[in-house]
Amino acid sequence: MFTLPDSPRFALIGAGAIGCYYGGRLAQHGQEVHFLLRSDFEHVRRHGLHIESCAGDFDLPASALHVHREPGEMPKVDVVLVTLKTTANRHFETLIRPLLHEHTCILTLQNGLGNEQELARLFGGQRILGGLAFTCINRIAPGHIRHSDYGLIKIGELDRPPTPRLRQLSDRFNHSLVPCKILDDLRLGRWEKLIWNVPFNGYGAALGLSTERMVNNPAGLALVRSIMEEVVATAHAAGVMVDHALIEQNIQKTLTMGPYKSSMQIDREMGRPIELEMIIAEPIRVARQHGVGVPKMEMLYQLLATQLRGPDDCRIG
Amino acid sequence: MFTLPDSPRFALIGAGAIGCYYGGRLAQHGQEVHFLLRSDFEHVRRHGLHIESCAGDFDLPASALHVHREPGEMPKVDVVLVTLKTTANRHFETLIRPLLHEHTCILTLQNGLGNEQELARLFGGQRILGGLAFTCINRIAPGHIRHSDYGLIKIGELDRPPTPRLRQLSDRFNHSLVPCKILDDLRLGRWEKLIWNVPFNGYGAALGLSTERMVNNPAGLALVRSIMEEVVATAHAAGVMVDHALIEQNIQKTLTMGPYKSSMQIDREMGRPIELEMIIAEPIRVARQHGVGVPKMEMLYQLLATQLRGPDDCRIG
Repeated sequence: MFTLPDSPRFALIGAGAIGCYYGGRLAQHGQEVHFLLRSDFEHVRRHGLHIESCAGDFDLPASALHVHREPGEMPKVDVVLVTLKTTANRHFETLIRPLLHEHTCILTLQNGLGNEQELARLFGGQRILGGLAFTCINRIAPGHIRHSDYGLIKIGELDRPPTPRLRQLSDRFNHSLVPCKILDDLRLGRWEKLIWNVPFNGYGAALGLSTERMVNNPAGLALVRSIMEEVVATAHAAGVMVDHALIEQNIQKTLTMGPYKSSMQIDREMGRPIELEMIIAEPIRVARQHGVGVPKMEMLYQLLATQLRGPDDCRIG
Repeated sequence: MFTLPDSPRFALIGAGAIGCYYGGRLAQHGQEVHFLLRSDFEHVRRHGLHIESCAGDFDLPASALHVHREPGEMPKVDVVLVTLKTTANRHFETLIRPLLHEHTCILTLQNGLGNEQELARLFGGQRILGGLAFTCINRIAPGHIRHSDYGLIKIGELDRPPTPRLRQLSDRFNHSLVPCKILDDLRLGRWEKLIWNVPFNGYGAALGLSTERMVNNPAGLALVRSIMEEVVATAHAAGVMVDHALIEQNIQKTLTMGPYKSSMQIDREMGRPIELEMIIAEPIRVARQHGVGVPKMEMLYQLLATQLRGPDDCRIG
């Protein structure tokens, strides 16, 4: 596997809250980062980025930023960071292809399952890395991001053990105030995160309830636990040996973290597309492939798909 | 089994929309009906009942009505009609005991499963009859009821074949513009009705969706169907041989009946208690007794119980 140059050039695709924060930290620490912006383009081009963060506020003036409205205007880069909503994955080809040279690697920090596979299919598996962002970041206004909690990312190679380029990337993040850990097994990391994401995103979005409301109720807690059991059973059937003890650990963590809205709940409340396919439907597909019964995950999908209307939202039925 | 007098005296316990309509029809046709009223007592005592009905509007002037505020003020009766919300079943003893003579029979027209059994435990199984109301009746204002559709009731004896008193009662209803059929097997009738009630009440209330919205969507329709399958499997395990074809018949009926809000959805929207125990939890208990897996009914219960808060709402967990 090829290595990265000492000062890799980055492109950030999907410069929402998460993207602006992580890309912003890299830019703040001297990396060349090219931001692809759509709705906030004009604002950021004029006024730069204003980032409030529990790890320290910072501003990136417009003069210090590389902002673009179209991928065709952007240079080839060494690393593409993908923080696009997974509901926009159909635009991968258009958005990413123009940025690639022979050795460009692509790191997706998106939610859920199957993003790396979709990128690998389009651009070749050799390029692909994946990462998990454990953080709480919201866009308050155009160009104004608030990072309120956590911040760790974990990154790994797709279907390969860690490589030198992965370590280089991890170093770049760690030197940019972004704590970053290396995953020996990206799939394991993805499934571990799903243990929390499937119940709290799905259930929270379906009923419009905070995590606190779900776990501070015997019926809600029982439901969360049984959905987590389905996720773990599916992972095991797929050969991903997530630790069963993570169920209780996730529940304990959630019991103490106070009222919290999952990203999917927030998206639903704002009337935005929800990441139903990658967070809920993909794990169900894996369960079906391996003959695992996951009635509660299926019902979660069905509840959310019914609320969404429209044929495209109901690919599983 | 004893027979009824030719002109039985009725008491109506739970004079909400359904009770006022059916009791009103009996009173309109010359039966002596004693209404137990609470919130609407003053209004009805002064202004009587005003009933709009697809089977013909009618008014019952105050002078023609027997209205009461307390069961202790009411005479002993031959037939107690119970149309109380099942969430108030804990008041059976106080409300019904004072009305009973040796041969009084009790007909519950309430929703769900277990009402007859609760009445039998308190007052003896010999007295108990049960019925199903297939109708669409709402209270518009104090003393003002709107009956918009259907109207059939089906009545049967508890754990017995039809009796002379059952036929007498059926005749009273049929002579009072209330179409009434005799059930040879009350349990069968109850379970047949649950095929519709469990999915459409539970799911509709949990998500705030009309029946139309649920069935006009592939994911929603699949979920409705799989919940119905669980109800049928539970009935069969309990020895109640409901016809499996009722699943498709219920779906077809619902597909053509237009947007419709279930009683549980309306109750939730109005912030009133919902009939979670008798419509959802009781069938789940039966399933557990017979070792039938009903993950989607359980999840429905858990979703609704989480929305309700409070320890009393979470007896299953």
